Amino acid sequence: MKIKCIFCSKTNESYWIEAIKYYEKKLKNYVSIEIIELSDLKNTKNMDQKTIRQKEGELILAKISATDKVILLDDKGKEYTSMQLSEFINQVQIQSTKSLVFVVGGAYGFSPEVYQRASSQLSLSKLTFSHQMVRVIFLEQLYRAYAIIHNEPYHHE
Amino acid sequence: MKIKCIFCSKTNESYWIEAIKYYEKKLKNYVSIEIIELSDLKNTKNMDQKTIRQKEGELILAKISATDKVILLDDKGKEYTSMQLSEFINQVQIQSTKSLVFVVGGAYGFSPEVYQRASSQLSLSKLTFSHQMVRVIFLEQLYRAYAIIHNEPYHHE
Repeated sequence: MKIKCIFCSKTNESYWIEAIKYYEKKLKNYVSIEIIELSDLKNTKNMDQKTIRQKEGELILAKISATDKVILLDDKGKEYTSMQLSEFINQVQIQSTKSLVFVVGGAYGFSPEVYQRASSQLSLSKLTFSHQMVRVIFLEQLYRAYAIIHNEPYHHE
Repeated sequence: MKIKCIFCSKTNESYWIEAIKYYEKKLKNYVSIEIIELSDLKNTKNMDQKTIRQKEGELILAKISATDKVILLDDKGKEYTSMQLSEFINQVQIQSTKSLVFVVGGAYGFSPEVYQRASSQLSLSKLTFSHQMVRVIFLEQLYRAYAIIHNEPYHHE
């Protein structure tokens, strides 16, 4: 199985870029992973939130193939423990899914079309995190999930 | 009110150090904040988890004053939304608390003595995060909480 992470807009702080690289490299020991950062929308100051969601949604959907299984990282999604997330990923692998896609949206969330395309939504917390920080938090969780699957001593219950 | 953050062990990755500096600087616009990183324990390879918790606990308690209100960041704690965390901090400020202390423990959690000293426990997520990453996540939340209190356009519901 391949994992594809779609992040809306470029990562803009050097420390997030470094942290993303770190976890991407560690993940590559376990799984084929591709990180796609969508181009920043232009002239967003003149757009309302709905228009931003719509335009970001079009960019997201253009990166999704027909056979992809799509999970959105979303405040309103289901909260998992790290063990449950690990089990979920393991199950998806066993079901011979070719490509599992996680999407981290922009500051204003997803368009209805993106929700419609997704299999489910995953929430990292009741708290609202910055959409740039979410990328790093999620990659660390993904790494933790694979470390659990491979019985590595990274995760302590 | 002053906020004191106690982190067990030194922050060891340059990107976390940079991110902590970034949020510390932003927080200083709103509140007097002190970040205390405790010294790393030595020879932990020869210690069991209980001993590590105990020794870290002694270092934590040495940094806490009698009048401090202490909150532990803990998996088993109460989960808040960002709005609720903001309201909580605002309430504590109104009650003229002099010093509010947040403690991020090590990889193996807190000793019973530290739990006993604390007023409450706060959980950032059902997920288990690396104890180094938690520092950054928490500081971003603290910044978000103050941005909400001050009606800054940082937080979107």
